[in-house]
Amino acid sequence: MGSKTGQKTLGELAAQVGAELHGDPAITVRRLATLDQAGAGDLSFLYNRRYRKFLKVTAASAVILSPADAADCAVAALVMDNPYLGYARAANLLAAAPQPPAGVHATAAVHPEAHVDESACVGPHAVVEAGAEVGEHVLLEAGSVVQRGCRIGGYTRIEANAVLGPGVTVGRRCIIHAGAVIGADGFGFARDGHRWVKIPQMGGVHIGDDVEIGSNTTIDRGALKDTCIEDGVKIDNLVQIGHNCRIGAHTAIAGCVGIAGSVTIGRRCLIGGAVGIAGHLEIADDVTVTAMSGVHKSILKPGVYSSGWPVQDNRTWHRYLAQINRLARSPRQSDRSDDE
Amino acid sequence: MGSKTGQKTLGELAAQVGAELHGDPAITVRRLATLDQAGAGDLSFLYNRRYRKFLKVTAASAVILSPADAADCAVAALVMDNPYLGYARAANLLAAAPQPPAGVHATAAVHPEAHVDESACVGPHAVVEAGAEVGEHVLLEAGSVVQRGCRIGGYTRIEANAVLGPGVTVGRRCIIHAGAVIGADGFGFARDGHRWVKIPQMGGVHIGDDVEIGSNTTIDRGALKDTCIEDGVKIDNLVQIGHNCRIGAHTAIAGCVGIAGSVTIGRRCLIGGAVGIAGHLEIADDVTVTAMSGVHKSILKPGVYSSGWPVQDNRTWHRYLAQINRLARSPRQSDRSDDE
Amino acid sequence: MGSKTGQKTLGELAAQVGAELHGDPAITVRRLATLDQAGAGDLSFLYNRRYRKFLKVTAASAVILSPADAADCAVAALVMDNPYLGYARAANLLAAAPQPPAGVHATAAVHPEAHVDESACVGPHAVVEAGAEVGEHVLLEAGSVVQRGCRIGGYTRIEANAVLGPGVTVGRRCIIHAGAVIGADGFGFARDGHRWVKIPQMGGVHIGDDVEIGSNTTIDRGALKDTCIEDGVKIDNLVQIGHNCRIGAHTAIAGCVGIAGSVTIGRRCLIGGAVGIAGHLEIADDVTVTAMSGVHKSILKPGVYSSGWPVQDNRTWHRYLAQINRLARSPRQSDRSDDE
Repeated sequence: MGSKTGQKTLGELAAQVGAELHGDPAITVRRLATLDQAGAGDLSFLYNRRYRKFLKVTAASAVILSPADAADCAVAALVMDNPYLGYARAANLLAAAPQPPAGVHATAAVHPEAHVDESACVGPHAVVEAGAEVGEHVLLEAGSVVQRGCRIGGYTRIEANAVLGPGVTVGRRCIIHAGAVIGADGFGFARDGHRWVKIPQMGGVHIGDDVEIGSNTTIDRGALKDTCIEDGVKIDNLVQIGHNCRIGAHTAIAGCVGIAGSVTIGRRCLIGGAVGIAGHLEIADDVTVTAMSGVHKSILKPGVYSSGWPVQDNRTWHRYLAQINRLARSPRQSDRSDDE
Repeated sequence: MGSKTGQKTLGELAAQVGAELHGDPAITVRRLATLDQAGAGDLSFLYNRRYRKFLKVTAASAVILSPADAADCAVAALVMDNPYLGYARAANLLAAAPQPPAGVHATAAVHPEAHVDESACVGPHAVVEAGAEVGEHVLLEAGSVVQRGCRIGGYTRIEANAVLGPGVTVGRRCIIHAGAVIGADGFGFARDGHRWVKIPQMGGVHIGDDVEIGSNTTIDRGALKDTCIEDGVKIDNLVQIGHNCRIGAHTAIAGCVGIAGSVTIGRRCLIGGAVGIAGHLEIADDVTVTAMSGVHKSILKPGVYSSGWPVQDNRTWHRYLAQINRLARSPRQSDRSDDE
Repeated sequence: MGSKTGQKTLGELAAQVGAELHGDPAITVRRLATLDQAGAGDLSFLYNRRYRKFLKVTAASAVILSPADAADCAVAALVMDNPYLGYARAANLLAAAPQPPAGVHATAAVHPEAHVDESACVGPHAVVEAGAEVGEHVLLEAGSVVQRGCRIGGYTRIEANAVLGPGVTVGRRCIIHAGAVIGADGFGFARDGHRWVKIPQMGGVHIGDDVEIGSNTTIDRGALKDTCIEDGVKIDNLVQIGHNCRIGAHTAIAGCVGIAGSVTIGRRCLIGGAVGIAGHLEIADDVTVTAMSGVHKSILKPGVYSSGWPVQDNRTWHRYLAQINRLARSPRQSDRSDDE
């Protein structure tokens, strides 16, 4: 019953989420809500200190929180060390994921030499070209394009108007969001005098299992080898990944990041928003690069790296610019400080 | 008559634009043109000093300009304090906006459970899914996708291949440019050891009236609440707006801006090109952030804020880098300057 | 024969690529491969020092390389000053470019008042609106949209789901990659109190011959004149080019660059990744701007320009921030250093 409506008892949830229950296990909740907006029947959560002030006044039926906050919770509590993970797990348990109906829409264009599993759902105006293989329970939303020779693993969703170029392979349980373009030509040209000669981009793109790729993100095909996105990688919107890159498993890349060609990024990295990474670099496992930083050299040790300048009021900022300008133009002063 | 061909007399224009006419009210103009390119029958304008040199030599029939420039104008003039606004108003009066014909193209895929007003225009290969409501005089261009349960207010245009995800609401007189994706999942994951657990994105996106959203811009649906874009907001191309954001009325956001999740931006703000704004911040009303700045903390007072570094010739720039590097590595020197 | 299968003798290649052959001219190669992955029948290349270590151990049948590296090559060699250009030329000779079959797919929507050359290939769900002219051997991929009055020159490819807005002209032998949007409205608004008045965008976009435009890149139509992309320009993915810009011939623009409105860029420039360029500026011929730099003033001399900060470990970076903060807030100290 619970699985259909998304309703669960706190007893069920505590067990499934991995939390310690403080309160009545028979209480039922139906949906997640923020502390300030939750009402009766809602499950809420607290992981960000900013919202702690709402804990005492929340009308939620129960709250997922950390041991440190449990004492201040006036309602039932699901207590665990990582309440954000608890929120994620509970939301998945309560969310009734819509199951798209199997079948090919009358307006879809599926090439006779493509193979689409009979459990897959192909939406209006979706296109599947010759030689493509679409696995079980795959969802191809409206207007998505799967070009010749692509292979898509089971339970993957290709959302509206996304494009998979020729020969792209996508693993199982992936989500490719609307408008993403996977497998366009990499940006490769050689100079011939003033003109550019295009270098044919003959590699492909290989995407592992459980990968999520944001809307309007672009991932280019390799020049000779495949561009590879390993299992469990999560990529936000409007990210550019150049040809021949390899992104290690479980790395997360925030929005507006640009990664030039032939970059290798390790496993479990966190790349902050709008970071830029120059071509042919290597980044080790477990590296964090904070937002708006520029990576111009390889990073061979785990750790946190930065080069983003925080905004100042405009007058202060102009003083910064003037000071460094002055420094750069007064070599003697700076030489002296070096000598001391 | 004038309204059909876009032809107007200067007398009509002066009254409708709110300018003082210097010259013959019976002169007619047909179209706008820049000072250097205008000829007989053209209306020109001057608001940018850079182009003042063309005023004396222009062949335009009339020029919209400020009182300060009126004396130097050899042809008829429409004089007002804000000639840029005058240009905008005159261009709207002279432009014959093409009215798309009502009706659903034979190749469009409109679900039987969707409601499309009979005055709306649905282009080739456009998709309207179940439960969607499309208002009067709406234009859905070729290949646009309106997913289940969306609501679109009157006179709004959804341009080619743009996507509205499930349940998105768009107000009246909006323009969503080609390739924009409104309502894809927000980027929300919780760590479970090395793996990521997806947080279901159950909120929507609510867009007010008179909003314009640029091509290939992405606006994510909320995790629990709606992402909100208030009335009159103007957003340029390739902008990313994360889940749960609220953008206040009449704020303008230039191209390539990235705004992380749960950011609240006030009314009448100006966000310059390629600015980045970190998650969970608050920005007051009437804040300007100049191009390429990074906002890492909330901004609670109106004003102008910056952190963009202006380009230098490469040698000077390397001197900047060397100087600050030296400073950061000579703590005694810097301590001393602090003591003084 | 060779042209069909892509197989060539080294003798043929040396002549066609413009290299000096060291080795047996009768040796045949079929495809390009990197030094470490090449096997018998493969042609490899060396232009990046990083990969020099693989030269002695490669199993390639032949290698394209510079005179300086020729002595260390154990297999046949095609020796030339610019081996990267040699690689590009050889790859084009060996790659069997797929020739799309002429004809209009049954699901394409071609307006009766459009003209499509009979040698063109129009893919599934592609749209060609009234008044458009599509030249010989043009390829319109699945879901691409060519709006009213566009003109597309011979041998140009418009890839999946790309959009050409009304009246856009594209030259010969161009490639517009998937999801690109050419000819959406520029971002032009005048303030009227707190509200914005849209400025009609009545210019077009003109794209020369041999231009390549990356996936999900956006190029806006002009306000009054055309936005112009001259012959041979190469633009990477997710680039924004504002209205009224002119990009000079043979300039290359890397990914994630944002160019505001009315910017003129000269010929043969190199604009690095994620560079931002403010509105109304002029950039001379032969200017290089390195990655992540911000251009706030016109650049009138050829040369290399920068303002990108290279990433540091987070502690060092915080020391940078502290030092410049200290400097900016201690005016006496900085004044004094100036006096010395």
